[in-house]
Amino acid sequence: MEGNPVLDALMRRKSIRRYRPDVPSDEVIEAIVRAGQQAPFAGQLGSVVLSRDRKRHPFGAPLLFTVLVDVHRLERVIAARGWERKTCDLAILIFGIQDAAYMAENMVIAAEALGLGSCFLGMAPFRAAEIRKEYGLPEKVFPLVQLAMGYPAEDPPPRPRYPLSFTLYEGRYPPDDEGALKEAMRVMDEGYLAQDYYRKAGYMVKLEDGREETHTFDTYSWCEHMGRKWGQWLSDPQAILEELSACGFHLLEPLRRPEDGAGERKPSGRGS
Amino acid sequence: MEGNPVLDALMRRKSIRRYRPDVPSDEVIEAIVRAGQQAPFAGQLGSVVLSRDRKRHPFGAPLLFTVLVDVHRLERVIAARGWERKTCDLAILIFGIQDAAYMAENMVIAAEALGLGSCFLGMAPFRAAEIRKEYGLPEKVFPLVQLAMGYPAEDPPPRPRYPLSFTLYEGRYPPDDEGALKEAMRVMDEGYLAQDYYRKAGYMVKLEDGREETHTFDTYSWCEHMGRKWGQWLSDPQAILEELSACGFHLLEPLRRPEDGAGERKPSGRGS
Repeated sequence: MEGNPVLDALMRRKSIRRYRPDVPSDEVIEAIVRAGQQAPFAGQLGSVVLSRDRKRHPFGAPLLFTVLVDVHRLERVIAARGWERKTCDLAILIFGIQDAAYMAENMVIAAEALGLGSCFLGMAPFRAAEIRKEYGLPEKVFPLVQLAMGYPAEDPPPRPRYPLSFTLYEGRYPPDDEGALKEAMRVMDEGYLAQDYYRKAGYMVKLEDGREETHTFDTYSWCEHMGRKWGQWLSDPQAILEELSACGFHLLEPLRRPEDGAGERKPSGRGS
Repeated sequence: MEGNPVLDALMRRKSIRRYRPDVPSDEVIEAIVRAGQQAPFAGQLGSVVLSRDRKRHPFGAPLLFTVLVDVHRLERVIAARGWERKTCDLAILIFGIQDAAYMAENMVIAAEALGLGSCFLGMAPFRAAEIRKEYGLPEKVFPLVQLAMGYPAEDPPPRPRYPLSFTLYEGRYPPDDEGALKEAMRVMDEGYLAQDYYRKAGYMVKLEDGREETHTFDTYSWCEHMGRKWGQWLSDPQAILEELSACGFHLLEPLRRPEDGAGERKPSGRGS
């Protein structure tokens, strides 16, 4: 398996947070987005806005792609054939987020293959209204994720992952196993500490509600980082529903009055 | 750019719906899922259940992966560090669907690199309760998508995509352009017809409400297919909310009573 250039690219990729200033050529940019397009889809629901205004980008990356769930475009295509969308917003978002994500991941891998680095910025959905305004997005277009990209000015190692046995199960989801949990946490914590990841990043998630810091960069690692993020942040679904709503997506409303059994019909596999 | 083995793999991939009966080795399966794990993540929120019971799989594929948004595992990890999840279900699903999708797409590309083919099956979320039962999924685990895989017994061409200019925009989302729309529809319709895609698949989406068929395989193509899917199916959000709820996800409820400004806090970029 070693020496397979595609597997090598998948295995060596890591997020890049320092970039050289040189701007990738149009040819390179186009090859990357074309590779993105070729990902599997349910409805070609992903599109992309590119910014080359690096002064405004995270990490000063030369390129910033905003990856969109683009239902507006689909609606235009089917309207030109006399169809109106009936699939509800929640269902089409479940497909559209995947279409956009598969495209984005292909772009990440294509960039890696061409010597570029990238880093996903996951907060786009939580400031969707602002991004919508910035890029002039029409109704029914939702910014899923942003992707900073350029030639890397750092070469960190690939980051640790859970043991395979803590991710791949056969036949049935296994009962909770304390030994496997501890081992997975050990691999993640020792792995990130061995790479001095958080010290080099100069970043710890702050404890809220005035709680006193209990860690230093000698002990702060991945599991604690996860606890502080998911244990403190984004508790209010209303805030996200409002961002979605600002983009024209209303999760709870059918687009048409649902008829008997209309919710039971099934699209087939991805048509690609 | 041609001759880059990674770009080539991304560009030549297409969904495979006929499989040879031989079962890929454990070594191959493990390499594919390991490559999946190495995708970027917000919280390592993706996990996978594998079935090798090919008699029960679509297309008789030797392997069927069910790709999961696994919040249960994350909760166990942070609980072991004294944290309880506060991030609401809707927010963690937005991150978790991406984590699982990036992983799944890496698996698709790794499979391609090793001579295997695959096909996504997008209906898992709409029969989540059934899948949950089949694989014994705990609460807070949601089946996002299934991935059929094996050695291909067909070699179709890569499928058409929109022109790049209908997907990649610079600086601003463009105003609607009827010429660009027509050209994109032409590329898709003529491309699928030239490959005789729907005739070979033997499949047209049926017109509902007793409407009479207006197409044959000489004229039925991608845009009409999209119109019939998204113009007829999955209109009822309640059906999906119930599947999510059966898996322990309640999109509208905060996990804790949201405090002042608690919805405003932001996780940083993906930590990988």
